[in-house]
Amino acid sequence: MKIGILGTGIVGRTLAARIESLGHDVMMGTRDVGALNAKAAPSGGGETFTAWQAKNRGVKLGTFAEAAAHGELLINATSGSGALAALSMAGERNFDGKVLVDVSNPLDFSHGMPPTLTVSNTDSLGEQVQRALPRARVVKTLNTMNAVLMVEPRQLADGDHAVFLSGNDAAAKKQVSEILGGWFGWKQVIDLGDITTARGTEMLLPLWVRLMGALGGPRFNFKIVR
Amino acid sequence: MKIGILGTGIVGRTLAARIESLGHDVMMGTRDVGALNAKAAPSGGGETFTAWQAKNRGVKLGTFAEAAAHGELLINATSGSGALAALSMAGERNFDGKVLVDVSNPLDFSHGMPPTLTVSNTDSLGEQVQRALPRARVVKTLNTMNAVLMVEPRQLADGDHAVFLSGNDAAAKKQVSEILGGWFGWKQVIDLGDITTARGTEMLLPLWVRLMGALGGPRFNFKIVR
Repeated sequence: MKIGILGTGIVGRTLAARIESLGHDVMMGTRDVGALNAKAAPSGGGETFTAWQAKNRGVKLGTFAEAAAHGELLINATSGSGALAALSMAGERNFDGKVLVDVSNPLDFSHGMPPTLTVSNTDSLGEQVQRALPRARVVKTLNTMNAVLMVEPRQLADGDHAVFLSGNDAAAKKQVSEILGGWFGWKQVIDLGDITTARGTEMLLPLWVRLMGALGGPRFNFKIVR
Repeated sequence: MKIGILGTGIVGRTLAARIESLGHDVMMGTRDVGALNAKAAPSGGGETFTAWQAKNRGVKLGTFAEAAAHGELLINATSGSGALAALSMAGERNFDGKVLVDVSNPLDFSHGMPPTLTVSNTDSLGEQVQRALPRARVVKTLNTMNAVLMVEPRQLADGDHAVFLSGNDAAAKKQVSEILGGWFGWKQVIDLGDITTARGTEMLLPLWVRLMGALGGPRFNFKIVR
């Protein structure tokens, strides 16, 4: 399957490497390909994108618009603060009728740690993305755990912990649910309802950040016990 | 131990009944004792307070101030919207040096379902309570699950799921942690840090409410898988 991933940070790289390893045709999108390739400072995961791509040669790189045009299914893995601008640069028509998996969180680090949220309570980034791209079939998911666990949930409890789905399109959620289980190994996939339920998962982030501090690292997740 | 519980709704009643059954001397506090006893309409749990108290004769009833004066350890089980007014009526000096377990959530039902939060992101009700009562030793906890599970966590997975602690006083959190484990049977008690971490647990409520809808009831909880 052709997959377009917007964002080249640690989340985008982790998703791209895993999905490409499953045999899919992955293109990552960035604002300025030349600038990214010229970047000498390490970023996501402690290495430059160029160094990372040398180990992941099957993953293509293009502009936001090229990656969005490439993908039959698209993933927004940009930082929350840059998400709407990136999606705008990607070109609205490149999302028409496509499933857009939104993994981003509206984290605001501008006032230091812990981050606050740029939007919460009565709105969410997931809803903002859906409003910005009304013809995309937005599914908010995978935004409540560390990047490695997104694609390798079996690292904890054999994958038996929770990932949530929010979105207005039932068929899109069904497809994403199958991907989460079939491609990655998620066992507790919970459909919360329409895209407004993304408020709930995005507002989980402040607790997640504090748990990371209390537990000494990001290698944990929430399981729903019934 | 002498326990004062502020609030006579379902949460206060559930806590009072369980704690009294363990042999403690429990007084519940309300705004107006006469008005509560005269109330003909069923409330928390589908019965009037009078009907409930007839089955729980060991539990005393007084004003907010009488219950606060009675307790060596106090529990705020009022509705979030009424919490600060109730604590004010209870009299600041009645909290001096005492542990105040804050179970309330800043839920706003005035715009219908699902509720939003009256405070979130950069502040919390837990912090507001601590600021209002600077000499109380506030511990925010038990605000992230159904009332029955608060006191009977063993109803799910033998009690092996999460309850969080937020507070500025380490000794107070230690005492509350021992109560959660020893009195109620909680197995996963996680100290998140100071009272500002209450933002995280209060912001879990929007997800909790949506999960209740998705799962068809309130009989679930979060477990942290590591």
